Amino acid sequence: MGPPKLTYFSLKGAGETIRFILSYANEEFIDERIDFVKDWPKIKPTTPFGKLPILEVDGKVATQTSAICRYYAKKCGLAGKDDWEDLLIDATVGTFDDMRLAITNSHYETNEESKKKKIELLNRETIPFYMERLEKQIKENDGYFVNGRLTWADLWIVALLDLVNKTMKRTLEEKYPLFEALRDKVLAIPSIKAWVAKRPKTDW
Amino acid sequence: MGPPKLTYFSLKGAGETIRFILSYANEEFIDERIDFVKDWPKIKPTTPFGKLPILEVDGKVATQTSAICRYYAKKCGLAGKDDWEDLLIDATVGTFDDMRLAITNSHYETNEESKKKKIELLNRETIPFYMERLEKQIKENDGYFVNGRLTWADLWIVALLDLVNKTMKRTLEEKYPLFEALRDKVLAIPSIKAWVAKRPKTDW
Repeated sequence: MGPPKLTYFSLKGAGETIRFILSYANEEFIDERIDFVKDWPKIKPTTPFGKLPILEVDGKVATQTSAICRYYAKKCGLAGKDDWEDLLIDATVGTFDDMRLAITNSHYETNEESKKKKIELLNRETIPFYMERLEKQIKENDGYFVNGRLTWADLWIVALLDLVNKTMKRTLEEKYPLFEALRDKVLAIPSIKAWVAKRPKTDW
Repeated sequence: MGPPKLTYFSLKGAGETIRFILSYANEEFIDERIDFVKDWPKIKPTTPFGKLPILEVDGKVATQTSAICRYYAKKCGLAGKDDWEDLLIDATVGTFDDMRLAITNSHYETNEESKKKKIELLNRETIPFYMERLEKQIKENDGYFVNGRLTWADLWIVALLDLVNKTMKRTLEEKYPLFEALRDKVLAIPSIKAWVAKRPKTDW
């Protein structure tokens, strides 16, 4: 049937989570990168819900980044040992995404005054609130976000750091040593390291 | 250990998804409803990430609505038969939530002019776009959102209809007969019907 084809824009963005997990799973995949201006208007109507990333596998089309990641996580030992562990992984992914969404939301704010206020609130309250609690979670889970060992929540969050940091114009994990150590640990996994070394260089 | 305790505000809101799935699973639960003004400021710092709903079960605390729903769905036959079916359920839940988030986002917009524009765009483009595709999905799945039978995606979406409809001040599924039929089918499930009959009456 050939390898799965991931279609996304030519950036790390949210789709980088899937690339991390496919790489970790040693799953060969076609990293199809399309141009937002030139290609997307033509491709958009052919996608199930007008959104990327999508993953084509064995003639079927999958949507929704976290759904795709969860699917491959089960195949490569990055899921939980039981349903409760899965719940904790899902909750961690969802929690980080609450913060990420607040950050993205500020980025797309078109009213300049509102945007300034949102960014200020993020830096003063929202980001420290989440980062402190995530740091505590790493402390309580032997250096991982959850379940005391590597799960797809770790890959999810580390894959998204470039996006949130670029949006906020700073390194969010800078003052959180356990968070930094976990980031470095994930980036040192041979399959992830190889992927990061070979991926196209993009700003976002 | 006692029954699980769901803590949420005194409204249907997002937490209603968990109440639907616990009811379907015939899982006895404490439906703890707190007052946003009187109770929440005191309770907020005691929650893992300053958000509700949370579910306390066997002395442990779970967060994130979809994570909690997925956990109970596995226990009561509302999950997929295999990993791919689970992916399709997760994708459907995520897709509906993309629309729900766009709707919620308009609701919390404080700039009156931006709010008006957002609501107009929702009614003209976003909502018809999603509703048409979801209607098509029901057609292709024997009257359910996915996998040709009842899954937690059906309960998730039907439980959230009151919230999105109240926000948009109209019945979104009105012109989509398969969507309406699926809604009625879910609301006619005896355990769901019993829950809806006995739940506190709230506007939201």
